[in-house]
Amino acid sequence: MSTKDQGNNSPSPKHIAIVGATGAVGIEMMRVLERRNYPVASLRLLASPRSAGKILEFRDQKIVVEPLTEKSFEEIDIALFSAGGGISKEFAPHAVKAGAIIIDNSSAFRMDSEVPLVVPEINAADAASHSGILANPNCTTAITLMAVYPLHQAFGLKRIIASSYQAVSGTGARAIEELRDQVEAIAAGKTIPKEVYPHQIAFNVLPHVDSFLEDGYTREEMKMQNEGRRIMHLPDFTASVTCVRVPVYRAHSVAVTAEFEKAVSLEKAREVLMAAPGLILHDDPSKAIYPMPIECSGEDDCRVGRLRLDCALPNALTFWVSGDQLLKGAALNAVQIAELL
Amino acid sequence: MSTKDQGNNSPSPKHIAIVGATGAVGIEMMRVLERRNYPVASLRLLASPRSAGKILEFRDQKIVVEPLTEKSFEEIDIALFSAGGGISKEFAPHAVKAGAIIIDNSSAFRMDSEVPLVVPEINAADAASHSGILANPNCTTAITLMAVYPLHQAFGLKRIIASSYQAVSGTGARAIEELRDQVEAIAAGKTIPKEVYPHQIAFNVLPHVDSFLEDGYTREEMKMQNEGRRIMHLPDFTASVTCVRVPVYRAHSVAVTAEFEKAVSLEKAREVLMAAPGLILHDDPSKAIYPMPIECSGEDDCRVGRLRLDCALPNALTFWVSGDQLLKGAALNAVQIAELL
Repeated sequence: MSTKDQGNNSPSPKHIAIVGATGAVGIEMMRVLERRNYPVASLRLLASPRSAGKILEFRDQKIVVEPLTEKSFEEIDIALFSAGGGISKEFAPHAVKAGAIIIDNSSAFRMDSEVPLVVPEINAADAASHSGILANPNCTTAITLMAVYPLHQAFGLKRIIASSYQAVSGTGARAIEELRDQVEAIAAGKTIPKEVYPHQIAFNVLPHVDSFLEDGYTREEMKMQNEGRRIMHLPDFTASVTCVRVPVYRAHSVAVTAEFEKAVSLEKAREVLMAAPGLILHDDPSKAIYPMPIECSGEDDCRVGRLRLDCALPNALTFWVSGDQLLKGAALNAVQIAELL
Repeated sequence: MSTKDQGNNSPSPKHIAIVGATGAVGIEMMRVLERRNYPVASLRLLASPRSAGKILEFRDQKIVVEPLTEKSFEEIDIALFSAGGGISKEFAPHAVKAGAIIIDNSSAFRMDSEVPLVVPEINAADAASHSGILANPNCTTAITLMAVYPLHQAFGLKRIIASSYQAVSGTGARAIEELRDQVEAIAAGKTIPKEVYPHQIAFNVLPHVDSFLEDGYTREEMKMQNEGRRIMHLPDFTASVTCVRVPVYRAHSVAVTAEFEKAVSLEKAREVLMAAPGLILHDDPSKAIYPMPIECSGEDDCRVGRLRLDCALPNALTFWVSGDQLLKGAALNAVQIAELL
């Protein structure tokens, strides 16, 4: 059947590779491809030699994980990378050379002006201008902008001040184990194991996500401003963020105060948030209805609630966003980008 | 020995009552009186009929908890109340009539212009003008102002935007049990018990502390502005706060962005924070040194760290404060007020 015969405009099936297939995000990438019926002609699962040989299931088919090498990308159309910035920098050039399009979940190329940084609900058109590599944004940034961008369209965004409540799965599978092991050790009165985080995360909060910069912010904190400028096409946007790791397994939350150019109204704000794609206005405090990580875990849509006129800043709104950082913050957004291609 | 003979100016021993003696804060009040060698002539422990008859130890002396009645305050010099606003409103008048001075930890009298609202490190002088009742501020407010006030003295405070990370012990002893029970139930795969909070708190965060107001803020959130104005004598101070309950047993944390009238400098800010009483500048991110609830639990001093020039607001500083809300946020501050009398 030729492409022309398909009539329904569905894209031709693609040969897909996932780099970092056994990681927390890699696994979700497979699940999202299945769930969204992405047309997969073949799926190659790539990981470190340590994880190679594992068998994973995709659409009832068993696939053996292969070790990632320079030759891994032959006949691949789209390679989804989620194995850290070092792996992306080393192997993306090989994938490009082999003719694959790379959708990279690491921070390696996000600030490269040649590489579109895309949240499909916000700047889908940017994807068209790629030269072989597209970047998936930082998880906290993507989730926050899902609510901030519709408000920007209504009122003209000036800046945000935000604090995050980030789940341990954002660090990876080992951090999930570390939280579980620490909780067990505390219950049993045993020594608390600490490997992934510099301090105990169970029953504690750490104002420390990613590494520190000279100015006192962390790299993670500055992603909101740096990536937000590119995604929203707002070169003067500023964002002051405090990123905090909390003892939650999955889904990030963010308390946001956003200041706008124009006068804001709650009615209009609710209207644009209700109409925004990929976002649910979940906001009825009188019934204890507001976004929470346990309800957003495993959900594609982000949620926004606790919406109120800011009482300290003029033309500002304060609200609370939660979203699954493995989905909208990573795997879902990557597959959505693949769907644009 | 007459007062005059004492020479060393130590105050004459006082007859003390604690209302709500078996609660999380009541227990801490006893411990703080002991630890600070407060001159106690006698200690009367008062609680609900349900808790009456319990035996608590104070300075190696066993004291039977008595049921709170209108007659409980005879011969009492100072009554420390921490049994909720309803009890304070009902019984404080009886205590005043009996000649006692009340230091009230509830929100019942905090906004009463006749009642001094005191953080001794900030507005000790206000305590002198009491008419029988003094109020202890909200826990999150007291902890935050410990860092905000010294900066105000240096730069002139305009407003703050803050997000809290509040421990379950702020809700009381039953909430501590609820978190523990939920963690156990999850580990055992059992039904998760829920009584104190409207949603699961284990491995979750709730943007919901205290009840909601018409404008979408909670009562807890507005205490920062309302109480902050009285404590700092700043009638135009504004504060936009998002209060969030996190699965931490003890000690609250707050991410604060504070905007000032004058230009700020990090050097001066560090200087005033280092000199501030009751506060420790705990700030060396390169060594993963920043305030954390597990380190502040059981500590009198609050800690401030993650200090940086705000990258989004001019003349602003962003920082992170942690403090034991049962101590500086409640029992310690109450006993410090008693020491002023």
